[in-house]
Formats: sequence, C-alpha cells, structure tokens
Amino acid sequence: MNARTPAATPVQHRLEALRGAMRDAGVDAVIVPSSDPHISEYLPGRWQGREWLSGFTGSVGTLIVTHDFAGLWVDGRYWVQAEAQLAGTGIQMMKIMVGQANGHIDWLAANLPDRARVGVDGTVLGLASARALIDALSPRGIELVADIDLLAPIWPDRPALPAAAVYEHDPAFAPISRADKLAHVRRAMRDAGAQWHLVSTLDDLAWIFNLRGADVNYNPVFVAHALIGLDSATLFIDSRKVGAGVEQSLKRDGVALASYDTLAAALCALPPDGTLLIDPRRVTYGVLAAAPGSMKQITAVNPSTFAKSRKTEAEAQHVRAAMEQDGAALCEFFAWFDRVVNRERITELTIDDEITAARARRPGYTCPSFATIAAFNANGAMPHYRALESSHAVIEGDGLLLIDSGGQYVGGTTDITRVVPVGTPSDAQKRDFTTVLRGTIALSRTTFPRGIKSPLLDAIARAPIWQSGADYTHGTGHGVGYFLNVHEGPQVISYYAAPEAHTAMEAGMITSIEPGIYRPGEWGIRIENLVLNVDAGKTAFGEFLRFETLTLCPIDTRCIERTLMTAEDIAWLNAYHETVRTRLLPHVEGDAKAWLLERTQAI
Amino acid sequence: MNARTPAATPVQHRLEALRGAMRDAGVDAVIVPSSDPHISEYLPGRWQGREWLSGFTGSVGTLIVTHDFAGLWVDGRYWVQAEAQLAGTGIQMMKIMVGQANGHIDWLAANLPDRARVGVDGTVLGLASARALIDALSPRGIELVADIDLLAPIWPDRPALPAAAVYEHDPAFAPISRADKLAHVRRAMRDAGAQWHLVSTLDDLAWIFNLRGADVNYNPVFVAHALIGLDSATLFIDSRKVGAGVEQSLKRDGVALASYDTLAAALCALPPDGTLLIDPRRVTYGVLAAAPGSMKQITAVNPSTFAKSRKTEAEAQHVRAAMEQDGAALCEFFAWFDRVVNRERITELTIDDEITAARARRPGYTCPSFATIAAFNANGAMPHYRALESSHAVIEGDGLLLIDSGGQYVGGTTDITRVVPVGTPSDAQKRDFTTVLRGTIALSRTTFPRGIKSPLLDAIARAPIWQSGADYTHGTGHGVGYFLNVHEGPQVISYYAAPEAHTAMEAGMITSIEPGIYRPGEWGIRIENLVLNVDAGKTAFGEFLRFETLTLCPIDTRCIERTLMTAEDIAWLNAYHETVRTRLLPHVEGDAKAWLLERTQAI
Repeated sequence: MNARTPAATPVQHRLEALRGAMRDAGVDAVIVPSSDPHISEYLPGRWQGREWLSGFTGSVGTLIVTHDFAGLWVDGRYWVQAEAQLAGTGIQMMKIMVGQANGHIDWLAANLPDRARVGVDGTVLGLASARALIDALSPRGIELVADIDLLAPIWPDRPALPAAAVYEHDPAFAPISRADKLAHVRRAMRDAGAQWHLVSTLDDLAWIFNLRGADVNYNPVFVAHALIGLDSATLFIDSRKVGAGVEQSLKRDGVALASYDTLAAALCALPPDGTLLIDPRRVTYGVLAAAPGSMKQITAVNPSTFAKSRKTEAEAQHVRAAMEQDGAALCEFFAWFDRVVNRERITELTIDDEITAARARRPGYTCPSFATIAAFNANGAMPHYRALESSHAVIEGDGLLLIDSGGQYVGGTTDITRVVPVGTPSDAQKRDFTTVLRGTIALSRTTFPRGIKSPLLDAIARAPIWQSGADYTHGTGHGVGYFLNVHEGPQVISYYAAPEAHTAMEAGMITSIEPGIYRPGEWGIRIENLVLNVDAGKTAFGEFLRFETLTLCPIDTRCIERTLMTAEDIAWLNAYHETVRTRLLPHVEGDAKAWLLERTQAI
Repeated sequence: MNARTPAATPVQHRLEALRGAMRDAGVDAVIVPSSDPHISEYLPGRWQGREWLSGFTGSVGTLIVTHDFAGLWVDGRYWVQAEAQLAGTGIQMMKIMVGQANGHIDWLAANLPDRARVGVDGTVLGLASARALIDALSPRGIELVADIDLLAPIWPDRPALPAAAVYEHDPAFAPISRADKLAHVRRAMRDAGAQWHLVSTLDDLAWIFNLRGADVNYNPVFVAHALIGLDSATLFIDSRKVGAGVEQSLKRDGVALASYDTLAAALCALPPDGTLLIDPRRVTYGVLAAAPGSMKQITAVNPSTFAKSRKTEAEAQHVRAAMEQDGAALCEFFAWFDRVVNRERITELTIDDEITAARARRPGYTCPSFATIAAFNANGAMPHYRALESSHAVIEGDGLLLIDSGGQYVGGTTDITRVVPVGTPSDAQKRDFTTVLRGTIALSRTTFPRGIKSPLLDAIARAPIWQSGADYTHGTGHGVGYFLNVHEGPQVISYYAAPEAHTAMEAGMITSIEPGIYRPGEWGIRIENLVLNVDAGKTAFGEFLRFETLTLCPIDTRCIERTLMTAEDIAWLNAYHETVRTRLLPHVEGDAKAWLLERTQAI
C-alpha cells in the first residue's frame, strides 16, 4: 500500500504554476521581493505577489524559487510568524541576520549554476538592489532577466491597480502652492543641470502636486508617476481617479495627465541627449529602463524629498493644532480606559477600536496613520506586534499596556507611543519605564549644531538605557510627513542607518523620538513623541537647533520610579506636563478633563 | 632704469630646480604630500620634502607644482601660519574646507591639460590617495607617474634615513612574547587565506616584534618594513640599528634581517600566484607596486592593528602603574606652578621645561609622547598651538592656562590635558570650564554595547557643550598605544571619522576623552583623560563595556561653577578625586602631597 501523499496546498499549486512559467520563460530562478514600482512601505494588492505565492503575510520578505528550491528570506521580526505560515508549503525560512541584508543575493551567487538566468519583475526592483544583484551575479555569468513579470500568466485574480479618488489637499492646510513647489523642483533641476526629472515615490508626488489619495492603507497617497520637465509636467495616473475639478486645477498649473501605463513610452520618447535627474533610492530598475540609455543621468536625493522634510512655520502651526486634537482624543480614550480597566472585559482589539473612534470624533481627522499596536505585557515585547482576531490578549490583572498609534489629520500626521499601568506594575517594570523615559527626555532636551547628521544623535537617547544594561534593536527616530507618510525621511535617528542615509538636520524637520526596552516573554516599553527641529540661535560656533516636542499627551507618572530620575529629568517632565495641560485643556471636558488634570500633576 | 627685481628666495630656487627636474622627467605637475612610506604621523627628515620645498613647517599640507603654478593645500588649523610662511615664495595657499579633503585632486583634474603627466613619489602615497588620484585623473587621460622621486636630483643635503638604535621592549613590561604575536598574525593570515603579509606601519612593527626605537620624535618606533610569511618573517631595516643581542633574539623567533632597501626585491620575488594580505590604509602605492601584479590581494585592517589596540589585563596593570607615576609628576609640577605663578616670571616655555623635568624624574620614563602644548589665555584657543622661542606668552595676571602633555613610559603612554587658573578666572571662563568638564564626565560615565562603532559615542560628550551654544572642530577621542604612538587607532571617538574608520569598541582599548571650547582671541579649554574599555557585564541584551578612567590628576575645582553641574556630575567628580588622592598619595611628598590633598577636596 502506498504512503498517502498529503493534498497539495494552494501555495504548492501556485509554486508549481510559477515553475511552469519559469520553464516557459527559460529562467532558472525567480526573485519575488516585497515591493512595488513606487518603493512604497504599504503595497497595493496588485504588488503583493510574494504574499500570494508564499502565504507569508508579514510586510517584508524576499521569496526565491528555483526548480528544486523555494526559500523566503525574513529578518528577526518575522521568524516566528514565517515559521508558522510556511509550515507544509515546501518553502524554507531563511533567516536574515543583522547586517546581512543581501543574504538572498549571496545564496543565488553560491547556488545557481554558471550562466544561469534569474527572472525578476524589474519594475519593482529598486535601483540599488538591482545593482547589488548584477554585481554579485555577473562574475559567474549569471544573467538578470528583469523585463518579465512571471506573476502575470499565473495569477488569475490578481488585484487591479487601486482606484481611489484623488483630491486636493485643502488649500487652507497647504500653505505652499503647487506652482511654488513645481518651481522649487525645477530650480533644483536647473541647479543640477537636468532637463527632466522622474518621480515615482508616492509621498513626493502627493507633496509636489498638493494632492492626496487613498490607494493604500494609512498613507494618504495615490499610485502614479510624474515626469517633470523645465516647462512641462505630466502625471501618469489612472484618469478615473481624477475628477474634473482636480484635472482643471492641475491644468492651470501646467500639469498634464496621462495614463499610468504610458510612462514607459513617455520615457522612451525623451531626447536621447537629454539629462535626467533621478534618485537611485526612489526609482526602480525596470521603470527607469524605458528611458534612452544615452541620456545623462544625474543622481541625487529627490528635491521634493528634502523640501517636504522641512516644514514651514505655517505647516508647523497646523501640526501643533492637529497635535492638540490628537492629544484631546487620547485624553478621552485614556479616561475611558482607566474607567473600565479591570472592571469590564477589554482586549487589545478593543483598544484599537476605542482609540480610533476617539480620534475619528476630532476635526480634520482622516484615518489612522498606521495599524495601531496595542500590546499587553509579553505582547509589548514584540516591537512590531499586531493584535489579530485570531490571536490577541485580554487586558486584565497587573502589568503594562503599550499603545503605539497615530492619525492622519488634514493639518498633520501624528504618531505616539504611551505605556500605561494595568492594576499594579511591578518594581522592575517601573525601573524599565523610568529608564526608557530618561532616554526620551535626554534626546528631547538636546541642542545640536544645524547640519549634523541625524544618526549621530542616537547615542544620546540610548545612554540611559545602556547604563541599565539594556538596548533596543530598532532606530530611535524616523522622519514624519505632513498629512503624509508616517515614515517619511530622509532623516532618521538610528545608528543602524547606512552611510548614504545620513541626512543633515535642518529646521522644520519632524522626527520621532522613541527609545524602548523589550523583555521577551515579559513586557515591552516604548515612549514616543514627535519633535520639530527649531532654531536655537546662532553663536560664535555656528547655528544650533533644538527639538520642540509636538506630541501632547501625559506620560503616565504611575509607572515612574522617581529616585532613578535626575533633577533635570524631573524638571523636563513637569514642564512638559504643564504644557500638555495648558494646551489640551480647551479641547477636553468631563472625564477627559478630569483625567488630564490628574495625569499632568507635577512629580 | 629697470625696476629692481627682488632677489630670489631659497624656496624660489628650489621650485626652479624642481621644475627643471620636471622637464627632464617630462611631467607637467608634481605632487609633494606630507607623508612617508610608513604612513607616519611624525616624518623623518628624509621625507620632509614638502617643508624643504615650500618653507611651510606645519605638519600637514600638500604641495602641487606645475610649470606656471605652485600651491599648498592646508586645512583651517594652518591658514594663518601658511599665509605667513608662504609670503613671497610664489606659492599660493589653497584652503582645504571641512569635508573637501581632496581639493588638490579636484584642482589637478580641473586645471591640467588632457593627457598631462603628474609625477609623485609613489612610495609615500597611501593606497587610498593613489586610487582617488587615478579615479579623478584617468577620465581626462591624465597619467599618474608614481615611480619617480623628483626630490632625489635636486635635494643635495637631503637627510639620510634615521639610524637610532633599536632595542627590546623590556620583557617585564611586554607580557605577550614576540612568538605569540607572530603566531597571532599568522593565524589571522590563515583565516583570511593569505600566505604573505606586508607591514609598513611603524607602530605595528614595534608591537609585533616587541622592539622599540627612536627614529622620530615622541613615537618610540624605528623605520622598517616587514614581510611575514606563514613560516618566515623578514624585517627590512638598516642593520646598523640592530645590535647583536637583538639580532640573535629575533633569529630565535625565526625573524631574519634584511637591508631596508631590499624590500622591493623581496616583494618582487614573491610567488606570482601567492596571496598577500595588506591594509590599504597602512601601505603605500609605491611600496606595494613591487609585488607581482598577479598576486591575489586580500585587504583588511592589519591583524596587529586590532590586536595591539586591545590591551591585555597585564598591560593594563602596567598602564595603571605608569599613570600613577605620571600623576605624581604632575602633582609636583602643579605644586611648583601654584607656588611661583604671579610671583616669578614664567612663560609657556618654562611650563614645558618644568613638566618634562618632573616626568623625567619618574621611573620608566623615556620621553614626551608629543610636543607639550602650554597655552595661556588666547593661545589656548588654538587647539594645535605650540609655544616657540620666537613667539610665546608670559604667564601673568588673570586667566586660564591650558596644558596638554604626555609621557612615554616603558609600561604605557600618557596624554592628559588640564586647565588651571592664573590669578582669578572670569565667570565666563568658569562657565566654559564647567561645560567642558560636563562633556568629559558625560562620556566617562557611559556604559555602551560591546562592538558599537566608536564614533557613535561622540554626541554624548558634545551634548552638554552644544547645550551651551558651543562646539569644537576636533574629534573627542583618539586611540592610544602601549609605550607606542599617542595617536594610535583604529578606534576614534569622532563624528568626523570616515565610515571606513568606524571601529567596533572592544575590551582593552585605550582612548582619550577630550572635549573642548575654544574662543578665538580669548581662551581655550580642553579637559582630557585616557580611558580603558572594561567589561561591564553581560545582560539579556548582550555584552556591555564601560570606561575606566586611567588618567590620575586633579581637575581644578577653582575653575568650576558648581551650580551648572548636576548632582550626578558632582558625584562623579568627587569619586574621581577620591581615587586620584588614594592612588597618588603613596607617590608624592612635601609640597606635591599638600597640593594633591588640597586639590582633591570634594566639592
């Protein structure tokens, strides 16, 4: 009697279909990255082929399939999840260790035969990744076949391009006009000696054109590309998404519309002796491949990327107002939480519902700026935890609840992490909380030279945490957009940042400060505020900046072990709570007001 | 009547001779860097051709001469000096701005005709500099002619190679034997897959062979190269410098001697299919050029560079003992200083004499570890100031005296900066002093993850200084050798460090912590201690290190504005002074003892 063969899973069927397509195309291996033609953080369904093929739902991972192997490269955040989701699929989990981001490339170079052919959809392959691949494979004569999309023939129900309506960023909240932004970009193009500029990143497009959309979750962007000339500009976008009013408005500013799928033809028609400005970290290999190879390429960070990172004072004022609304929503939420905790049955999912509902009652609110993290005790020790219907904790007993959440307001993007006590936190929890808070305060108080590279500030937040024998494996801070992406550079405060990501600090940048301590299986603590780079005066030694803390929400003093704090720490915290109280008081009433007054008492 | 032609200066004569040699060699430009075949900080006279040609005596600068131009590229430290010394020579001073280290290369690429020929003595050209030159010049078809030394025909009284005797590092102070060090280097060679290793840097040679010399000032090194095989080792050195005892001792460890000028022939005779380990930052282009081009080159930091940076516990114990002697010498010096200041006429030169004499009375002392900086008031604002017979200040009245000095002891190398009051320091001076001290303390107290890149710690020392609106344009810390070079990496604590100089912090490394504030025309403050990386325990988050402050000498509390210090700052300072008192008391008597007791009182 034969051993029973288990029935093939959908993933196995899909891998077989892929291998058939590989044979038809004559390729020996295929790479399916987690990316789209816009280097997006959140991928439209159309470009979630890696998830469709592998069943792994994490946001980052690279699938490689050969005729006799399938492996998914994932970093430490996803090892537990990938192991579970890949079980029985025949796909091996391949661990990406810290500092070995190109492990899958090394694997290809080591395991493929000489002169093999590797297929990849070049339109979703970042320029830098493509170069790393070619450099690694070409010595062995391995060819990168980047002009094929092997998902096309095998994915019958592949989602179409997203089609959410595009709308104008309310002019009352968009202090710089589209015409001025285009003029700024063209000035930078002229300075760089370029006649053309290709923009593929969706936050850059939303900023330049003062438009917003809803093509992906959380980021109010729309899928498009733009080709900007010195006196022309074309937005390549599904025309059904653009109403007549927006189209007219764009036309008045000299912006033409063209179908999304005509970009390649437009690039191909560029003058062969022209000069094209591109940002190698913000365009893909396959999209760029359509431009004449004879064009001179000037590589630089997108002018709009720098410009939009430096919020104007008018924008900063809108952000301050949005922070007041956000903080008031949080007072309402936390007042509710303190009332019901350990009295009613609440779960991590309830937290998400309530906090989102509180924000939704506020003027200018559009949507969450990312998926709320509500993580109780041990769940808090996973920095990227997300509660699911199928798996989440009930909040009861004693411990700490970590909530990382944010909103998109028409006048700004928020992102805040607070940790609050449930029942009675332990002494060890209070020590960790106080240590993390000291890190947040240490960096928040820092004055620094204008132009310093942002990662160099990281150690200031970490020093108190190192002193306690702890550390955290994520960055201390990320840039934040203006009613745009919550992760929006170019600046980051992280000593993990690659040298090419070292960006000079300039006035107007908004960045998070979010140190943490995570004890696997026990608890996690992170305290996060957004800060604005503001002028701190000019001395004989140059210009200085300092951080204005934008986020307005009490930091729970019930979790503090006061004896661990310095007098300076305590002074900062009391002054912060004074500001929070003064700024939020006009926006709250009832329970929320009482909660605010109680939780902003000086220590 | 003709206008009178000024008589040609020696520099003009030399430039004319150089141009004649250039014509004979058919080159259009010549580069004369400040360097030698050993990438040394202190150049033997033989390689001070840039000074001989230009008359500029500063330690760093690059001279470029064409048939109709001569320019000297110097950084901000030397602009005043270069302008004065180049006046009337026909050599233009070319300013090197921060971040533009390759300005002279850009100049060559921009100003030479296509297909020009640029001459340089390749044996003094670092590999990285050579590559930058070739990359910049080759697109224009400009050829680098690196196998000529145009100084040879025109420099009649060029100094010979230095010939100081080489001696064994006293075995009582050299806990690791030469055999063990060679075994360590060979293990690293094997791990890297190399059969041969070329060592040109003099500190590496001194460490590997447990030898010391006196070929240059301050660094107890000797001019040589070494070629190390898996079972052979040859030291290329002037045989007159090596006594019979040392030669025998080397022979016992399998080390052969060969004449310094036979290295090229030995490299040339290496197996064409062999593998050679070299450190591209620690060999020169011209020296390496003699090796067969067919050899496989493995590039890595010299194994000895890493190994010697990690002092063993036995070495650390010797350093602690040397620090006690050094601190005791400083007590004697400062007791004398306090007795005579504003009573007898003393100058900055007297300081150098007295401090060196105090050290010279101590056991194990060999020589100063660098040229003493004694700088009163405005002179202190020049970080690289050196008092000269022709130009120095009398120390009198009120203000601050900065003294940066160090000694070479058989059991360690010291480097310390203290600032002491003369008369009554002003409130503003005390504020700056206290601010700098807070920077020194902040970093000294830091615990940090083992393996963190050293430059990332820089901001911790700078934060208190930035807070006051000040900054300093030098690094916060440099590595220090063990009875070897006072500037000895690979680790540096400096946010100016190039990415390739980012070195992981490991236990046993000795580094300086020396923040400062410099007010041009007014005063300068720098407070410097040497610190040792010591184990701070292993936690769930990994291994941690902390700094043990090695330097033992009071920090003058008369310059402190106590209200600017935190309770933690004060606790650190009082604990430090307690340690200084306990450790130095057995080594001082009389006035020095009284001074120590007085100056280590708690504040």
